[in-house]
Amino acid sequence: MTARCFEAERLREFCSRVFQQCGVPAKDAAQAADVLITADLWGIDSHGVARLRSYYDMLSFGHANPRPRLSIVREMPGTATIDGDNGLGLVIGSQANAVALDKAEMVGSGWVSIRNSNHFGIAGYYAYQALARDMIGWTMTNTTPQVAPLWGIEKMLGTNPIAIAFPGKLEPPVVIDMATSAVSFGFVECARQQGRDLPDGLAVDSEGRATHRPEDMMNDGSLLPLGQDRAHGAHKGYCLSAMIDILCGVLSGANWGPFVPPFPFTLKTPARRVGKGIGHLFGALKIEGFIEPDEFKRGIDEWIAVLRATRPSPGAERVLIPGDPERQAAAVRVVDGIPLGHLVVEELRQVSSRTSIPFE
Amino acid sequence: MTARCFEAERLREFCSRVFQQCGVPAKDAAQAADVLITADLWGIDSHGVARLRSYYDMLSFGHANPRPRLSIVREMPGTATIDGDNGLGLVIGSQANAVALDKAEMVGSGWVSIRNSNHFGIAGYYAYQALARDMIGWTMTNTTPQVAPLWGIEKMLGTNPIAIAFPGKLEPPVVIDMATSAVSFGFVECARQQGRDLPDGLAVDSEGRATHRPEDMMNDGSLLPLGQDRAHGAHKGYCLSAMIDILCGVLSGANWGPFVPPFPFTLKTPARRVGKGIGHLFGALKIEGFIEPDEFKRGIDEWIAVLRATRPSPGAERVLIPGDPERQAAAVRVVDGIPLGHLVVEELRQVSSRTSIPFE
Repeated sequence: MTARCFEAERLREFCSRVFQQCGVPAKDAAQAADVLITADLWGIDSHGVARLRSYYDMLSFGHANPRPRLSIVREMPGTATIDGDNGLGLVIGSQANAVALDKAEMVGSGWVSIRNSNHFGIAGYYAYQALARDMIGWTMTNTTPQVAPLWGIEKMLGTNPIAIAFPGKLEPPVVIDMATSAVSFGFVECARQQGRDLPDGLAVDSEGRATHRPEDMMNDGSLLPLGQDRAHGAHKGYCLSAMIDILCGVLSGANWGPFVPPFPFTLKTPARRVGKGIGHLFGALKIEGFIEPDEFKRGIDEWIAVLRATRPSPGAERVLIPGDPERQAAAVRVVDGIPLGHLVVEELRQVSSRTSIPFE
Repeated sequence: MTARCFEAERLREFCSRVFQQCGVPAKDAAQAADVLITADLWGIDSHGVARLRSYYDMLSFGHANPRPRLSIVREMPGTATIDGDNGLGLVIGSQANAVALDKAEMVGSGWVSIRNSNHFGIAGYYAYQALARDMIGWTMTNTTPQVAPLWGIEKMLGTNPIAIAFPGKLEPPVVIDMATSAVSFGFVECARQQGRDLPDGLAVDSEGRATHRPEDMMNDGSLLPLGQDRAHGAHKGYCLSAMIDILCGVLSGANWGPFVPPFPFTLKTPARRVGKGIGHLFGALKIEGFIEPDEFKRGIDEWIAVLRATRPSPGAERVLIPGDPERQAAAVRVVDGIPLGHLVVEELRQVSSRTSIPFE
């Protein structure tokens, strides 16, 4: 697949202007663009400007509110539930996360669930925000149902990611950001575009039969949970996905499980609603509430050094630290720009043509 | 493997008396016995009375303190770090967890890290304690290093379990309790005892080569993270284990990673100490701080009903809910007793003979 490179700042400007033309206030538009560009800089191509078109469509068709007013539905000093007023997750995610961080500042731990939201981009973006405040940040969200529970053959749960970030002192932070299925839906989409088969144990067709064909999964099949089968721990992947679905959906009063509204909204919408929009959970732990922050950060530096020094397995270069791949991608892309495949470029051109905002 | 069944209450009495003879106060001894018997009732045979001998040895050889005095090292309204004074994790686990629950009662969320602890049995026991208080309970611990990070061939991390429990209204609770490696070390031990090979993708030998032989793993080999290899998500299993190691070890000031002292203590002890004992993290979220508890519990009931109704995959009976296997085991074992293999019975006889406390 050939790809052309685009300067991050020009893509940021483009995204921001597109969001503004959809009625999103300038500051919020810049926020939304920042989440997308950060994903691209970190090398998470599936979650960057490749999705601008879907967000644009959501706003254009009135499926998301460009000027949401967040309301706190319920709260205690260390908790809150927020109604996101059907805003862009890319905008209200940071706002809800800020409430969690403020609560942790006051009482040491802050946990904020949000309902009536939409897709918020990469989970790691929000967890990362805790670091500058000497906190540990957690982020979870439920997502479009794509995953079958162990021993089932219907898409009952999302790829429900979890992210968590820990600050280092001299070393960069440890940043974990992972879907709880073995692979993401984007992985299957890419395999189809590139005509590749899927490895064993990642997907089943609509009858629950193992398949290597991306089309079989996409045609009403399902992804398998992390762990692939019972012998290798698929019950654990199912449990992680269930945990996140309940924390984000049931706890906030959002939709959950098979009833989570899909992203993009052009996918089949569930017949039933059991809550409002999709849900996220943001958590913050103030390090000072547990240990001297400097001691903790020196501990993280040492943890990183020790894990990095693990003897590598045959054929492998070395053990990576969570966050390494994203930093490596960013170091290259800040200089060389962000590579976009021709399908993404084509979509951005369509958005450009509809909005009359220049893209190239 | 033949097994004889023993009445749970008689085993409980035996364990409690053994702990008392080691100098543990009566109330704490009953608490420790309760964790073990609960594991056996729930069908988690590796973590029940099968481990009494190891705890007995720890206390007898002065490796654990029978009368610990917990001290709060640092706290805020929603956080604390506790020093466990080298007590039995089976005893101080519940005490630290109670602090987390009390904090959540006050401010909505309570998170307590504990260092200078020892093996605490099944993580799910503590998460379960939150349910009676209309809270969501979280429990994590770091453990004996047995797991190689992705692309490494040394045992750098434990099988580090996470547990979380959500109360239902008419339905029983959703209780998740899982190691973050594909299988536990106990699984490998059982395979060796029974002369069985390991399935693909669970373990490597001391040179990092894939192996089916339990002996190869136990002879300085390693378990693989949940996900087994890069294509199937082993980086995710590694990340989960890392997350729990940092939250339990670095955050509390306990040992972490390859430096976690082993259980049983007769395994090779790491040459270096980076903290005190092993560490746990207990979290509690007060449901009322997010949503009306009754609404949440009805939501859990509905979530359970919907997931249970998933169309089963070919050859499978039905999708289980996290907590089902433990409840099914308990229903049988309360009536029939707890089946113990002859090796476990032999160990308990040895403890009986040394303590002069009758076992059979």
